Amino acid sequence: MSRHRAFVQEFYPEDHAHCYGCGRLNPYGIRLESAWEGDEVVARYTPRPEQVAMPGFVYGGLIAALIDCHAMATASAHVERLAGREIGEAEAPSYVTAALHVDYLAPTPHGPELVLRARVRESGRRKQVVEVRLEVAGQETARGDVIAVPIPEAMSGTAPRRPG
Amino acid sequence: MSRHRAFVQEFYPEDHAHCYGCGRLNPYGIRLESAWEGDEVVARYTPRPEQVAMPGFVYGGLIAALIDCHAMATASAHVERLAGREIGEAEAPSYVTAALHVDYLAPTPHGPELVLRARVRESGRRKQVVEVRLEVAGQETARGDVIAVPIPEAMSGTAPRRPG
Repeated sequence: MSRHRAFVQEFYPEDHAHCYGCGRLNPYGIRLESAWEGDEVVARYTPRPEQVAMPGFVYGGLIAALIDCHAMATASAHVERLAGREIGEAEAPSYVTAALHVDYLAPTPHGPELVLRARVRESGRRKQVVEVRLEVAGQETARGDVIAVPIPEAMSGTAPRRPG
Repeated sequence: MSRHRAFVQEFYPEDHAHCYGCGRLNPYGIRLESAWEGDEVVARYTPRPEQVAMPGFVYGGLIAALIDCHAMATASAHVERLAGREIGEAEAPSYVTAALHVDYLAPTPHGPELVLRARVRESGRRKQVVEVRLEVAGQETARGDVIAVPIPEAMSGTAPRRPG
């Protein structure tokens, strides 16, 4: 066992570590961190005061964004585990979202920590279908179904290194 | 013709004007503004430097969030127009998202203004199904399909007035 939990986002290549949702090198972003817990990939995030839909309830756009980033990390961790590697044993492969579906099951109260739990439901040679559950205080309030694909050529290695 | 274009978000009731994505009273948010242009509801937004997925490309979570908020405004404007009212003639009814689906058709370049164009595809007594196209520099890069419903009792009038 390693001495600290390894997060997928620590091991994305530097060029792919600027994402507003989960890039460790984005100083303004959310910096979501996703790690294995048993056979699920789990992330936790406590929304900022301003991330509300209305006072008392979490902004739905944030929920969609967290589900999106966490699903990409889950695809990466899953494909690595299939290849016999745990997080941190190699660079994490980068995925992008082909399609994102979110069902908002109930209003999500603002204040407590949000917990995202995900697994890959369907794993193809390229396409990974990831399901994500969002829980707050033990209640599931949103569910995501996300299609992840390897990062396309058009987005890889052609852009400047810094945001903006 | 009015002297300035009226935006749906100017006319949400004060309790529903704190949304991170489109609330006029959220000082940290995106403050998306949506207005009729002919038979479409249109919004424009230029992403901040940090709102990237990776350098050169817009963050997918932002795209989902913009589509979400703009779809709610479109539902509101549509239902008002069905009732014979244009934006600004009355308080805008508030909608929330029951389900959000986004197809990412191509990477969205970061820099130019994003244009969101939406219309209601299916209008029920409660449920409005909204389709949204995201364009940048004339190319469609994402498409949304969003189910909007009137704000539920559980979210209305029970929370404190300010975020946090």
